[in-house]
Amino acid sequence: MTFDPASLTFDAAGLIPAVAQDATSGEVLMVAWMNADAVRQTLETGRVTYWSRSRQAFWIKGETSGHVQELVDFRVDCDRDCLLVLVHQTGPACHTNRRTCFYTAVRDGAEVELMAPDKGA
Amino acid sequence: MTFDPASLTFDAAGLIPAVAQDATSGEVLMVAWMNADAVRQTLETGRVTYWSRSRQAFWIKGETSGHVQELVDFRVDCDRDCLLVLVHQTGPACHTNRRTCFYTAVRDGAEVELMAPDKGA
Repeated sequence: MTFDPASLTFDAAGLIPAVAQDATSGEVLMVAWMNADAVRQTLETGRVTYWSRSRQAFWIKGETSGHVQELVDFRVDCDRDCLLVLVHQTGPACHTNRRTCFYTAVRDGAEVELMAPDKGA
Repeated sequence: MTFDPASLTFDAAGLIPAVAQDATSGEVLMVAWMNADAVRQTLETGRVTYWSRSRQAFWIKGETSGHVQELVDFRVDCDRDCLLVLVHQTGPACHTNRRTCFYTAVRDGAEVELMAPDKGA
């Protein structure tokens, strides 16, 4: 079946959440949002592209930082209201310079930082 | 630092997305939503509990199906507006009876079904 981005279920703002997972390690790196055009661009270019809610603009991941996400596989969930992108991540995915955005755990009622920021090259 | 669910960033509906990942295989199973009370219940009971947007009620995952999610680790992202729950998943996570909700890939412009529903026991 031919894939049409318009067949996805977008929220009232025209967005759908996308989970980015490291295709090699399986680590969940981040969650961000796409609109239909960001979905199209991601599939056409192989470079993961989100929609920045704060900037209200396309966000080609890594365009300024160099921390690009090369698309390995693109998945749609059963309700067609969430995406999973398997990626090859260059450098840290998180703007805090950590590999993943999910570096804080909650254990026994307390927050635990699981990793420090990467040192600069 | 003591964790307070109210310190999370919820959307206008009072919800935060939660990615469920198999703690053993690393497979991303599903994405659903929690409100502050669902976060509290998940942490207190060790049984992953969402907020059902369609039913507008707590959704203790597996309560009717038996396909429960036992919490292994609870993670918060850098912006505090997304959660990652690592779980031990009993049976399929998806209501279609597949292990994961992300069973559809988009490859070369076409949708590809990656797995069939599990056979009943």
